Amino acid sequence: MARTAAVLIIGNEILSGKVQEANVAFLAKSLFDLGIALKRVVVCPDEESTIIEDLRALSAAHDHVFTSGGVGPTHDDVTVPAVARAFGRTLRRDGPLAQRIADHFGTRTTEGHLRMADLPEGGVLLASERMPWPVIRLENVFVLPGVPEIFRAKFELVKAELGAAAPFVSRAIYTRCDEGEIAALLEAVERAHPGVMVGSYPRFRDPEYTVKITFDGADARRVAAALDACLDALPSELVVRAEREV
Amino acid sequence: MARTAAVLIIGNEILSGKVQEANVAFLAKSLFDLGIALKRVVVCPDEESTIIEDLRALSAAHDHVFTSGGVGPTHDDVTVPAVARAFGRTLRRDGPLAQRIADHFGTRTTEGHLRMADLPEGGVLLASERMPWPVIRLENVFVLPGVPEIFRAKFELVKAELGAAAPFVSRAIYTRCDEGEIAALLEAVERAHPGVMVGSYPRFRDPEYTVKITFDGADARRVAAALDACLDALPSELVVRAEREV
Repeated sequence: MARTAAVLIIGNEILSGKVQEANVAFLAKSLFDLGIALKRVVVCPDEESTIIEDLRALSAAHDHVFTSGGVGPTHDDVTVPAVARAFGRTLRRDGPLAQRIADHFGTRTTEGHLRMADLPEGGVLLASERMPWPVIRLENVFVLPGVPEIFRAKFELVKAELGAAAPFVSRAIYTRCDEGEIAALLEAVERAHPGVMVGSYPRFRDPEYTVKITFDGADARRVAAALDACLDALPSELVVRAEREV
Repeated sequence: MARTAAVLIIGNEILSGKVQEANVAFLAKSLFDLGIALKRVVVCPDEESTIIEDLRALSAAHDHVFTSGGVGPTHDDVTVPAVARAFGRTLRRDGPLAQRIADHFGTRTTEGHLRMADLPEGGVLLASERMPWPVIRLENVFVLPGVPEIFRAKFELVKAELGAAAPFVSRAIYTRCDEGEIAALLEAVERAHPGVMVGSYPRFRDPEYTVKITFDGADARRVAAALDACLDALPSELVVRAEREV
C-alpha cells in the first residue's frame, strides 16, 4: 500500500479570500510523483486550539503530515507552539539557531525574531548547505512556511527525508464525448482494472475536447491496460488524443 | 456573532495535483463580503464514506456548509448520495427534473444522465429563470459543482438564499518594516482593539513593500481605529501606503 499524507494550511488570509492558496497544488503534484497518496487537505484559522486538534487527527490517520503557514515572528504565528502541544512537548529555545538569527538581524534583533528559535522538544531540524534555515520535523509532522517560494525551496529538504518510492502514474484520454454517455463504460473499466482509478472531467467551452478521462495508479502496466480497454471501446471519431506513453 | 461557514471540496483531481483548486478563493471572498466567516476548508477524495463523515462534522459545527464537486453523471460522482446519507435521507428521482434532463439530451439520454435527477428526500431546489439547473440544499448544506464557471454562476442562487448581513471590512497598511521589529506593536494593537483581527504578511522580492499589515472586522470604525493606532506608531518613512477609506 502507498504511504498516505495530509496537509494542514494555517491561514486566516486564505479563509478571508485575501490570498489564493498556492502550496497545495505543488505539494499534491510532488507527492504524486513520490508515490505518496495525498488524502486530505484542511485549511484552518490561525488559532492554536484548532491547529492542535487538527494536527492530532491528521497525524494519527496519515503517514506524513505537512503544515503550511504561521511560522513567522508575529502574534498570529502560532504553528510551532501548536505542533509542540499537539504532541505534549514543551518549547525550548535552540541556542545555535537563536545565535544564527541574532547574527542575521544584528542590532535589530527582537524577541519576535528569537521566538523563531523556540523549538518543540524532540523535534528534528532538517537543513542543508543550500538551505541553512531549517525545516522542523516532529513525529510525522513537517512544519513548512506559507510563502510559496520558501515552501518550495524547503520542500527539497523534506523530499530527501521522505525517501523515494515508485511514483504514481497518470494517463489520460481527451474526448469529445458527453460524460453521461460514457458513464457506464468508465465504471466497467474501473471495475475490471483493480488498482486503477478512473476519473472523468468535463470541460466547458474548450475548442479541443469536452471530457478528459484519467487513469491513475501505482502500476504503469495496469494503468496502460485500463486506458487501452477504454480506448478500444470508445468510438474513434470521439477520441481527440490519448497520452499512452509509459 | 457572525454566521460561520465551511466548504468541502470533493476532488481526487485536486489531491493528485492534476487541477489547481479554484473555488475556495472565490467563495472565501464572497462570504467575507456577505459578513459570513469561512472557518474551515476540507479537501477529500471521491469516497462516499469519507464525504458522509466530513459532512456530518462540518454541518454540526457551522451555520452553512458548501460542497464543491462530484455532482456529474459518472461513477466518481458520489456527492449527492453522500449528502442524502449524511442526513439519513433516501434518494428519490425527481420527475420534473428527470423530464428536463431527458428533454435536454433527447435520444442520447442515459441512466447516467438521469441519476442527476436523484435527489435527497426533503432537499430544496434553488433555481431561477437565468439559472434553471438547480442547486440542491439539504438542511444547511448547499451542493455546488466543481467546475469553476458553473460554481460561480450557481453561487448567485445560494447568495439569494443566504440573505445579506453587514459585510466584513478589511483595511491594510503596506510597509517596508521587518516583521520581527513590529511583532510587539501588532500584538498590542490587536489587544487594544477587540473585534479586530490584525494580520501580518511578509512579501519577498517585491519592490514596493516588505510586510502588509491587515485589519479585519465586522465594525468599520473599530477597524479604522486599529489601523490608525498602528499608523501612528509606525515610523512614517517605513509606511508605503495605507488603505484607510471606509
